[in-house]
Amino acid sequence: MMISFGAVRFKLTSVGVTGGCNLVEVKPRKLGEMASDLRLVLIISFVSVLVFSTSSSSLPRFPRQNRARIQLFGGDRNSYQYQTKYFSQQLDHFSFADLPKFSQRYLINSDHWSGASELGPIFLYCGNEGDIEWFATNSGFIWEIAPKFGALLVFPEHRYYGESMPYGSRDEAYKNATTLSYLTTEQALADFAVFVTDLKRNLSAEASPVVLFGGSYGGMLAAWMRLKYPHIAIGALASSAPILQFEDIVPPQTFYDIVSNDFKRESSSCFNTIKNSWDAIIAEGQKENGLQQLSKTFHFCRALNSTDDLSDWLDSAYSYLAMVDYPYPADFMMPLPGHPIKEVCRKIDGASSDASILERIYAGVSVYYNYTGKVGCFELDDDPHGLDGWNWQACTEMVMPMSSSQENSMFTAYDFNYSSYKEYCWNTFGVIPRPRWVTTELGGHDIETALKSFGSNIIFSNGLLDPWSGGSVLKNLSSTIVALVTEEGGHHLDLRPSTPEDPKWLVEQREAEIGLIQGWIRTYRLEKEAQFPLLKRSW
Amino acid sequence: MMISFGAVRFKLTSVGVTGGCNLVEVKPRKLGEMASDLRLVLIISFVSVLVFSTSSSSLPRFPRQNRARIQLFGGDRNSYQYQTKYFSQQLDHFSFADLPKFSQRYLINSDHWSGASELGPIFLYCGNEGDIEWFATNSGFIWEIAPKFGALLVFPEHRYYGESMPYGSRDEAYKNATTLSYLTTEQALADFAVFVTDLKRNLSAEASPVVLFGGSYGGMLAAWMRLKYPHIAIGALASSAPILQFEDIVPPQTFYDIVSNDFKRESSSCFNTIKNSWDAIIAEGQKENGLQQLSKTFHFCRALNSTDDLSDWLDSAYSYLAMVDYPYPADFMMPLPGHPIKEVCRKIDGASSDASILERIYAGVSVYYNYTGKVGCFELDDDPHGLDGWNWQACTEMVMPMSSSQENSMFTAYDFNYSSYKEYCWNTFGVIPRPRWVTTELGGHDIETALKSFGSNIIFSNGLLDPWSGGSVLKNLSSTIVALVTEEGGHHLDLRPSTPEDPKWLVEQREAEIGLIQGWIRTYRLEKEAQFPLLKRSW
Repeated sequence: MMISFGAVRFKLTSVGVTGGCNLVEVKPRKLGEMASDLRLVLIISFVSVLVFSTSSSSLPRFPRQNRARIQLFGGDRNSYQYQTKYFSQQLDHFSFADLPKFSQRYLINSDHWSGASELGPIFLYCGNEGDIEWFATNSGFIWEIAPKFGALLVFPEHRYYGESMPYGSRDEAYKNATTLSYLTTEQALADFAVFVTDLKRNLSAEASPVVLFGGSYGGMLAAWMRLKYPHIAIGALASSAPILQFEDIVPPQTFYDIVSNDFKRESSSCFNTIKNSWDAIIAEGQKENGLQQLSKTFHFCRALNSTDDLSDWLDSAYSYLAMVDYPYPADFMMPLPGHPIKEVCRKIDGASSDASILERIYAGVSVYYNYTGKVGCFELDDDPHGLDGWNWQACTEMVMPMSSSQENSMFTAYDFNYSSYKEYCWNTFGVIPRPRWVTTELGGHDIETALKSFGSNIIFSNGLLDPWSGGSVLKNLSSTIVALVTEEGGHHLDLRPSTPEDPKWLVEQREAEIGLIQGWIRTYRLEKEAQFPLLKRSW
Repeated sequence: MMISFGAVRFKLTSVGVTGGCNLVEVKPRKLGEMASDLRLVLIISFVSVLVFSTSSSSLPRFPRQNRARIQLFGGDRNSYQYQTKYFSQQLDHFSFADLPKFSQRYLINSDHWSGASELGPIFLYCGNEGDIEWFATNSGFIWEIAPKFGALLVFPEHRYYGESMPYGSRDEAYKNATTLSYLTTEQALADFAVFVTDLKRNLSAEASPVVLFGGSYGGMLAAWMRLKYPHIAIGALASSAPILQFEDIVPPQTFYDIVSNDFKRESSSCFNTIKNSWDAIIAEGQKENGLQQLSKTFHFCRALNSTDDLSDWLDSAYSYLAMVDYPYPADFMMPLPGHPIKEVCRKIDGASSDASILERIYAGVSVYYNYTGKVGCFELDDDPHGLDGWNWQACTEMVMPMSSSQENSMFTAYDFNYSSYKEYCWNTFGVIPRPRWVTTELGGHDIETALKSFGSNIIFSNGLLDPWSGGSVLKNLSSTIVALVTEEGGHHLDLRPSTPEDPKWLVEQREAEIGLIQGWIRTYRLEKEAQFPLLKRSW
């Protein structure tokens, strides 16, 4: 499981903010059973989707800090063997303020490493916004190709996630804006750079080439790291990395337009049913006992507090479904069939003719939240913290404007409003975002001109069903900064383990990736060999 | 005048540190006159040269915090017209700590700018470790080529220098390690990036190409900025930029070997006289009234406190002479003849046959400190602070190991010792250096492999007489990252204004630079034109 970008809206009225936090937790319960033993848990780190609610006329509200949470122990921890280690890391690489160091966790596997003397490569997965074990155990592709490459695998964890907590604990690290202030992308990249430089020195493997991997935000980190640290890594596979989802580089409607198109391409009646459902929800909610009726229709364990809760719950489901609209059954978020959107639409369209629009929606979304049919009722749990790492990142650097259009979207129309966004961030974290910082520090505008004759060895892989693909690089920027695009692919599907059901295009995509990485390593070794003829070996 | 790297040694005993600070001030006095009106002032920002004194058996001493200072109002401020402006800048770009902004000074001239609609280029000089006016008014090359390019000129000042002081004043900014902690190269590069991005937006000149210039440390900044911010600048002329003078990339003896060779190539007897003078100084100093006698021989206004003061004074002179061993008379440090080392050696070798070794040395060094003959006595002024921006940088990131060898150097043999260096930095600033950080963050090791197929459009220009050339890039790394090397050139001579005495090789070097920069701009415009055919104009 590699879902690292979910989409949760901060619903805004036209004059205020209704925020949300990032984690959606569903405690599914077996009918008639206690749920504890069956609890499916899915961590979805996310990108805030901040939108205007034009359909709402309510007064400004404080950001909703309590949101539903979905967690999943994704991947099979037993499938991959690794050692867990820790590295003492600078808290601030870019100043000399007297700050405590912190312990960065990393996972390492050297079973297949051909060693320093053979210039055996080091595959470094750029840890995302979550527990590194989730990412490591869900990046089957890297584990599968390690033997072929004789590669050492390392998975350094991103600071402020998992166990890699500054100030000794999550509570201390997340205490306030001051303690959180070092949770930035640049610091995380520098962590990786310092970490792997030290690792190589300790292994006397200074000459071993490092190849970067990452999916979603981790893919952004991989691409940026190759650009910022070419002396440290020879190339990067950046899977589903929306490095262009900033400022005005891509239209802010892109994400929700793609989600919507994923449904429309399966069925336009399905698309229309969803599009019409939002007003139906509000209308129902305004009735006497409407919220209670909605809670019943959608099988919530407790009554809803507002229709927004329901809309967000549905919104999340559709967005995640678009990300994971994989061609084969997968069981990482919830057990899902192959092509799950097709299945959702089959349910929506195929409901009995007397089913209400909301009953149709429930039938459809149940494919996502309850495919096994074992969940009796859904609970929207409160998050007592309301603070989360990705929310902080979204409120500082990772400002990704998102709107949804009246025309092309099945969602209610929203326009991104930076003032409201800023207000939310100030109210939530006491921090002012720097929405232009990422493009200044890391680029993005007119990336074609910037990278046409600069940089090399980056693969941007994307599946066009993935709504994040719209903010990624979808065409070759040069002969060595290339885009691998699959029409039917989802969110970093290529990094998942291979399965017998893999379609041909997915097999070919992975083969192309392997071939490109082999080329980088071959070129690197030839250059080293030319410099140091005695190095010549069997590679 | 563009001297930004001087060389001042921290003399170390074998077990301890004798530190020095960076500025050497000489208050020359007219014979029989008050000096105030004639005071020649030369600012020499410097690179610490930390060496072991094997010839000293003294016990460890505290770093000498008070060192001589040379200042010069270099360049002709009236030659170039510019507006002085200020930009509100983040103190820490890489965290979200709640810190006060500071006012970054910049100089701007748009007299020759062809404008945004013509994609008129922006030439950005990367401000060094000093007052930006000095660098701007001594970079005649940039001013001279501006009309040809239709270029806008901007000279942003480096934070913590000149008027660009965080916390409102130099005193506050330099108060302690905490206030100084944001004086780093990465922050300075980010300053430039944020500044020019904002400038372009304000000028509606987002599409105008930015070309970077810099000499010495400014040249390092220019090269690094092109590598780190390719989306912001299309190329860089990095003159005399010793980006490889870190860790073990080049032998630590390089700098002093080059200084020594500059003297040896003029005269081996001159070289030998200097080489033998250090022991003679110590021997003289150990005599009764020896320091007084030395002070008299060398015409100091006040008695020396130690022979080290004299040795440092001479060491600085030789090192600077090597840097500015220009082929024509120049008057930026002190008025100097063309080929000043030749002149120094002529004095040393040509002294009357009964002159003592120290009298010869005095005769030679007078070419440097007193070429006009107007200085009556020299004063080694104390710097009451002992804190200086470049010293801080040298004690944090800019750790450039320097030794001098017994065999090839005319200086006393020294071996760089990091422990002592660290101790000095701790004692002086309360900071621990990160000697490996620059190569981790900015690269350097095996730069050929790293940049062979990465990056483009950097000129590393060097003159081989310049001792800093040994730490720079002296051969082409790729077809577009190129080295322009002149055998007879000194420290960023190419950035100085043209003169009628310019030798042919210097004229050709500058023409080559102009040609390369024209090529970058032409290619950029063609790419823009291909993207936006309507843009097509007269360029």
